Amino acid sequence: MENKQMLMIPGPTPVPEKVLLAMAKHPIGHRSGDFSKVIGELTAGLKWLHQTQNDVVMLTASGTGAMEAGIINFLSSGDRVLVGNNGKFGDRWAKVSKAYGLTVEEVRAEWGQPLDPNAFKAILESDSQKTVKAVIITHSETSTGVLNDLEAINAAVKAHGQALMIVDAVTSLGAVNLPVDEWGLDVVGSGSQKGYMIPPGLAFVSVSAKAWQAYEGAKLPKFYLDLKKYKKATDENSSPFTPPVNLMYGLQASLEMMQAEGLDAIFARHRRHTEATRAAAKALGLSLFAPDGAASPAITAIESDSAEAIRSAMRKKFDIALAGGQDHLKGKVFRIGHLGFVCDRDILSCVGALEATLMGLGHSAAPGAGVAAASKVLCA
Amino acid sequence: MENKQMLMIPGPTPVPEKVLLAMAKHPIGHRSGDFSKVIGELTAGLKWLHQTQNDVVMLTASGTGAMEAGIINFLSSGDRVLVGNNGKFGDRWAKVSKAYGLTVEEVRAEWGQPLDPNAFKAILESDSQKTVKAVIITHSETSTGVLNDLEAINAAVKAHGQALMIVDAVTSLGAVNLPVDEWGLDVVGSGSQKGYMIPPGLAFVSVSAKAWQAYEGAKLPKFYLDLKKYKKATDENSSPFTPPVNLMYGLQASLEMMQAEGLDAIFARHRRHTEATRAAAKALGLSLFAPDGAASPAITAIESDSAEAIRSAMRKKFDIALAGGQDHLKGKVFRIGHLGFVCDRDILSCVGALEATLMGLGHSAAPGAGVAAASKVLCA
Repeated sequence: MENKQMLMIPGPTPVPEKVLLAMAKHPIGHRSGDFSKVIGELTAGLKWLHQTQNDVVMLTASGTGAMEAGIINFLSSGDRVLVGNNGKFGDRWAKVSKAYGLTVEEVRAEWGQPLDPNAFKAILESDSQKTVKAVIITHSETSTGVLNDLEAINAAVKAHGQALMIVDAVTSLGAVNLPVDEWGLDVVGSGSQKGYMIPPGLAFVSVSAKAWQAYEGAKLPKFYLDLKKYKKATDENSSPFTPPVNLMYGLQASLEMMQAEGLDAIFARHRRHTEATRAAAKALGLSLFAPDGAASPAITAIESDSAEAIRSAMRKKFDIALAGGQDHLKGKVFRIGHLGFVCDRDILSCVGALEATLMGLGHSAAPGAGVAAASKVLCA
Repeated sequence: MENKQMLMIPGPTPVPEKVLLAMAKHPIGHRSGDFSKVIGELTAGLKWLHQTQNDVVMLTASGTGAMEAGIINFLSSGDRVLVGNNGKFGDRWAKVSKAYGLTVEEVRAEWGQPLDPNAFKAILESDSQKTVKAVIITHSETSTGVLNDLEAINAAVKAHGQALMIVDAVTSLGAVNLPVDEWGLDVVGSGSQKGYMIPPGLAFVSVSAKAWQAYEGAKLPKFYLDLKKYKKATDENSSPFTPPVNLMYGLQASLEMMQAEGLDAIFARHRRHTEATRAAAKALGLSLFAPDGAASPAITAIESDSAEAIRSAMRKKFDIALAGGQDHLKGKVFRIGHLGFVCDRDILSCVGALEATLMGLGHSAAPGAGVAAASKVLCA
């Protein structure tokens, strides 16, 4: 049906009506006193969301722009970096690092498996010369539905003492606990169309004092993505370049909603939805791509040779958009997004539709089994 | 009054209700077939607006991001570039070029004066070794209200034969004739919150075949701003990174409006508004910052020691936002934006309010003179 689509993809995620209407306001001048107040409020809200006193700046960019900024501002050509690569986004940060002439050492795991913290620990412990300048990790790997063990990898980085911890939190921030100050994460990048519950176009980077020290010696060229310009402007409740005023109106509304719900409740909701989705998949005899214990709070990837037929039927019959597999996983997995503005009812709708779709495609799943399994988790 | 502000600044510019409501639609997946159609339509519309068959790509960025991309994709460290600098934005492109290690030769004019095409001609004619790789020009210098003579400067670049012509058209595209193919402009950067009549957050770059040739040998590092990634995706009606879906809904609506009005009518409207504003300023005894014959179609800058008092009174009494002076012009000029979704009535409103404001501040302007002068132009 027209206008009836339900987004169960990892971004853009569903946007609350309140946010959409806020975005439909007429923009005001971004250099006005009134808009300075907005920037000040948003910055405070972003620090709350990041659980940090570090600087958090807003960029007009997609998440990739934020992550590129988070890498190139703190490093120089030739610098040695460890990049965790177990999916499309880990792979992307390795590519960004190479594009800027960094000496990239990839720590890999198979797509669908989490990174091994001990692999990082071993390299970092053997680095007595402290040549590793940064460790770059994708927290929630959107392409595979794997949540990497950032806390353990970060502990190895802290033990090293010198390397910066640079985190892609694009689909983990606002979905799973990410205590930036408690863990001492130096750089955290994220994007608006995910846990933030607003449309794409705005990106975020938090930067620690230690990262700012590294900035002073970092020599990679930059201008639009020069984070010091953003920090300087943010300190004055301003922006270095024209910001996306209307998306920021939307962010005002979504941060208010997030603060009303509370971080713990938000994280519990995402955990519940992940568990319900996985329980349903198991009950339907489907094969989960990520193992238990390493499940992303944002997205569940399911292996199936009928992935594209399932996605197509879900879209046509039930107006539900699911994501497909990326790169070599195209046609081999489908992915159910449960990130951001998603309620328990949405999970039941999606699982019910998935069950019906499988029946329609002749799969042997027991009717009702998926919804029953999801309900058990949701009503526990 | 609350919600009654009228934007007469050079960006964000006023946004039509149709565009605001289009932006308030729920986003759909940017990798869906439905959204591919949107990208295809927008790309065709952008080519129409640029009067070109060149590639035109969309970036999630502000205008500065587009211009940085337009510079760094086609050059290598050490390359000699001529940068026109007669205002804040010309100055910015010199800074970007220096940040990337280009050998920058600035061709300057006083702020408020246009660049001298002969200065470019002389350098380019003497460059028998063809060491100049690019000429970078701000077409409409937003900080001063000056329209540089791009056609004449470009003629010198064409005569040189080798150098790329890179144009900041941020406040000229969609306001004054800019025939990309007819003039053979290699790279043209622009931003959404200007003539496009949509809020900030989306930026555009057009790229010629000659520029793509230069791309192949260009060695500056890039990833998020790597325009080849955008071209490749655009050729498939897609985007390399998550695009700002809702702003693109807005662009659909605004391009429809622009096509209905027609390019000639749009340019005539901007010319009429510039002339009416300038005629009013003269009739009120005010001092225009840019000379006749070099007036920006987007913005009129007026010199006045009372600039800030005038802006403040206009805002408080009449709910009209005017722009102030930038950098060393702060407090010395105020700027009236007449770019994008501005009708004849808006010019009369603004001139009438300016007249009343001047009276209130004790200036000796003849009551009615400004509106009379503007009316004469508007009703000619």
